[in-house]
Amino acid sequence: MSPAVATNGFADTQKEEGPSRLPPVYSELQSNRLNHSPPLPSILKSSFKVVDGPPTSAAGNPNEIANLFPNLYGKPSVSLVPGDSEMKGHQSLKIGVVLSGGQAPGGHNVITGIFDYLQERAKGSTLYGFKGGPAGIVRCKYVKLSTELIYPYRNQGGFDMICSGRDKIETPEQLKQAEETVKKLDLDGLVVVGGDDSNTNACLLAENFRSKNMKTQVIGCPKTIDGDLKCKEVPISFGFDTACKIYSEMIGNVMTDARSTGKYYHFIRLMGRAASHITLECALQTHPNIAIIGEEVAAKKLTMKNVTSHIADIICKRLELGLNYGVILLPEGLIDFIPEAKQLIAELNEILVHDVVDEAGMWKRKLRSQSQELFEFLPQAIQEQLLLERDPHGNVQVARIETEKMLIQMVETELDQRKQEGAYKGHFQGQPHFFGYEGRCGFPTNFDANYCYALGYATGVLLHSGKTGLISSVGNLTAPVDEWTVGGTALTSLMDVERRHGKFKPVIKKAMVDLEGAPFMKFASMRDDWAAKNRYLSPGPVQFVGPFANDINYTLMLELGAQFPY
Amino acid sequence: MSPAVATNGFADTQKEEGPSRLPPVYSELQSNRLNHSPPLPSILKSSFKVVDGPPTSAAGNPNEIANLFPNLYGKPSVSLVPGDSEMKGHQSLKIGVVLSGGQAPGGHNVITGIFDYLQERAKGSTLYGFKGGPAGIVRCKYVKLSTELIYPYRNQGGFDMICSGRDKIETPEQLKQAEETVKKLDLDGLVVVGGDDSNTNACLLAENFRSKNMKTQVIGCPKTIDGDLKCKEVPISFGFDTACKIYSEMIGNVMTDARSTGKYYHFIRLMGRAASHITLECALQTHPNIAIIGEEVAAKKLTMKNVTSHIADIICKRLELGLNYGVILLPEGLIDFIPEAKQLIAELNEILVHDVVDEAGMWKRKLRSQSQELFEFLPQAIQEQLLLERDPHGNVQVARIETEKMLIQMVETELDQRKQEGAYKGHFQGQPHFFGYEGRCGFPTNFDANYCYALGYATGVLLHSGKTGLISSVGNLTAPVDEWTVGGTALTSLMDVERRHGKFKPVIKKAMVDLEGAPFMKFASMRDDWAAKNRYLSPGPVQFVGPFANDINYTLMLELGAQFPY
Repeated sequence: MSPAVATNGFADTQKEEGPSRLPPVYSELQSNRLNHSPPLPSILKSSFKVVDGPPTSAAGNPNEIANLFPNLYGKPSVSLVPGDSEMKGHQSLKIGVVLSGGQAPGGHNVITGIFDYLQERAKGSTLYGFKGGPAGIVRCKYVKLSTELIYPYRNQGGFDMICSGRDKIETPEQLKQAEETVKKLDLDGLVVVGGDDSNTNACLLAENFRSKNMKTQVIGCPKTIDGDLKCKEVPISFGFDTACKIYSEMIGNVMTDARSTGKYYHFIRLMGRAASHITLECALQTHPNIAIIGEEVAAKKLTMKNVTSHIADIICKRLELGLNYGVILLPEGLIDFIPEAKQLIAELNEILVHDVVDEAGMWKRKLRSQSQELFEFLPQAIQEQLLLERDPHGNVQVARIETEKMLIQMVETELDQRKQEGAYKGHFQGQPHFFGYEGRCGFPTNFDANYCYALGYATGVLLHSGKTGLISSVGNLTAPVDEWTVGGTALTSLMDVERRHGKFKPVIKKAMVDLEGAPFMKFASMRDDWAAKNRYLSPGPVQFVGPFANDINYTLMLELGAQFPY
Repeated sequence: MSPAVATNGFADTQKEEGPSRLPPVYSELQSNRLNHSPPLPSILKSSFKVVDGPPTSAAGNPNEIANLFPNLYGKPSVSLVPGDSEMKGHQSLKIGVVLSGGQAPGGHNVITGIFDYLQERAKGSTLYGFKGGPAGIVRCKYVKLSTELIYPYRNQGGFDMICSGRDKIETPEQLKQAEETVKKLDLDGLVVVGGDDSNTNACLLAENFRSKNMKTQVIGCPKTIDGDLKCKEVPISFGFDTACKIYSEMIGNVMTDARSTGKYYHFIRLMGRAASHITLECALQTHPNIAIIGEEVAAKKLTMKNVTSHIADIICKRLELGLNYGVILLPEGLIDFIPEAKQLIAELNEILVHDVVDEAGMWKRKLRSQSQELFEFLPQAIQEQLLLERDPHGNVQVARIETEKMLIQMVETELDQRKQEGAYKGHFQGQPHFFGYEGRCGFPTNFDANYCYALGYATGVLLHSGKTGLISSVGNLTAPVDEWTVGGTALTSLMDVERRHGKFKPVIKKAMVDLEGAPFMKFASMRDDWAAKNRYLSPGPVQFVGPFANDINYTLMLELGAQFPY
């Protein structure tokens, strides 16, 4: 173990930037990963041209989308094919890049991919990194990225090269400030690396710039560990692969512990507020006894009591088989998938804004009877959390609810009851876990490192060829990197509208777990076996060299129709 | 990713043993690790003889130890040297092995080491695994270990081959039952794999068998992720290396996240109830802004308020430098190191057994004034936890206290106060973490896999040469495996006595963090720099192949006087 001091001028850079930004020493793996050269798809290695596809439409409500994006709507998606390059842009480019929203492993490689494209194919270009997310564009806070500044971040986790933020560029004033920034920097292009909201925002910016005859093109890049930004052309968002593998390492370890100790039920809450892709992928990687998929809970309109009973049933069944332990996965956003829980929270938000919570509980009478019943069913600690921990607007903070602890208490109560009825004779002990931050900033897997580098490089191509309003698209991902396809998909083609406050708002619909899709079907076909027996798999720590260092996640394999290994 | 079905007869074994015991499919890494052949120290690869050292004494109170262990006291430790083997035992042996206490990565390799020794050097031998820890000896529950049964556990984490337990063999009745078991199985030897208590127990068993002229020899093996069982001859307990690397991977990821997000203080509680070795090692691996070492807290007689102020001071200082985030490590057992907290808990235990906790708080008057003050200083949630969550004997459950959440609340209160006084202008947000189960059952690192295999193999040698009352000792660990030394250390030489209920009780003293020792000194020399600046290191996931796959932890390097890399 010998941390290496980076000797590339980077220490000096750091002094200029203040102590907050860059680490002066690196672990051996950090140093080692600096030397990983992500392979490029062969199409990007030689001569290629950018070919337009047919005109596009929208994911829904094409008329509204056409109204919202008059300059972009209908424009073709593009793909790269071998041939003589006829780049329509300038010889050299001025490009800005921004990281938007929560961190995802691989973000730095998107930036290095853009940078290397510009260095290799558009000499004399300049790349600016906007600092702290979209607010960096609005406030014109940026750093000019150089070989020296970028080097220490190659293949590293985190977003700390330029940091990120959750602001949006939406109001007329913010749009105005963004215009000023891109004019001031004379930007030919802007790359927005983000999730569904950020890419919607990217499209709005692209439309805005185009409508004002500004030269600045905007290209999006699909980022989110949650895996809920994807479509046919964009098979996966980056970060999902790494995050799931890190969580699965830990789940596998806990499983081995559960089996060795033989007396605990581990309830593991995983990231994924809006969609349960992470829980599903981790289930395919580790074979837990139970994995709760929010989309199924919603589709079947399950209640809290249903979920509790389901878990208790399996615990009882396992006890009959002599097994008094297990591992249960659940998504962070579980509560949001349970209709009655959403209803309760909506009612609570309404009541708590106006009423005082009296000790006598008079306020409870304002709840509908079903909500009242659910409230009484919840463990006391959760009741208190619902009443006390509210955000500045008085709303219940659903994200703060420790669902895994809540379920443990509810299952405990249910099993106590069954015990009294003689239907359960065991001794239930739950152990809560939440795996979140540990996965967001891990070292990108080889897949994420390579995928992000290709995404970034492709972004350079798209900008260089004069395109705007596209999302960088790299496909054929189950094949070797060499055979990956490269292109750009019209952002408007992914859009639909939602009506909010009487207005149409464009959105890229979140990709939910498809209950008819291959990953869920595979899971559904195996879960009964996992529930009763132990089929635990322990994937172990991510490896960067060796025979399976380039493996990709099961969700992607199954969705792309690749042969499943088991 | 293609989980392999084990095709070695193991599936059949599983059917016989019931579905609880063995996984039918393996992850790629699990399969791959099966093929790792731990290298043996060269002394174990050719001809060697077992040489007695000089007579030994005890770690303290030699007279009492001599009284407690009349048959074993003073017996020499032994070492292996090249030469013609003159094994004093039988040609073939009947050996039993038991895993005792909490899990630690590498336990399976101890067993395979013993097994392979017997296969290679004492043909015709039999190895029994006692199931579920020492209770398996008392109840004579065992499994005969075979090539097929052992194979799937080679280099795998967990203790699930034969499982473990926390029972002891202490009462005359238990000792009697243990005698019956070893007689029934006609055991020549018994290997006890465990921590300080279990090795003390092993020594008692050895003495007991010897005092009754029974042939069964007993050899101990040093296991505990906490790292608090070690001495000159036993430089490290197994599992510590792996657990620290797994925790450090996660800490490094959280650090990258902290720096990227720039707005949270992460409070990470780590395993280590009695000693803070894990926290210290993880600090050396990751360079957190603060790491609290329990032994230092105890030595300096710090109060809760001191610890809180110390953290708040650093947070204030960092804010002046423009840094509103950080990472803080603390050991699980922190409260046990704070004299006033121990005092409060002792008083609470006394009061709560006899008194009712009245809402008016009359019971509080029974606390001494210092304890009352501390109690009032604690966050309400912790006060409630202290009063409500008691074990069946009415005692406060210190282990259940979420120290990281407690500290966050106390620091928040302190900073609020400073804000009112104008001494702090920031916005503090804490994020609690506890890393525990994730590390106990990980895949053993190459070091732990190799070390355990050598320990197990050495155990075979010691038993075969007729030794008893020793702990397997493998040394020179900073050198390549080839050059490791092998021997056995007299367990009585590690013993001291404690007076409990008027009786002397033998104990192997827990090895605490030595505040004059090299690891702590190194940490102390660097921590001020880490506090103010960011020196975060992210070690990343454990690698099994590649240039640093065989690295060992810093604590061991520093304690053995090896050159430190930085």
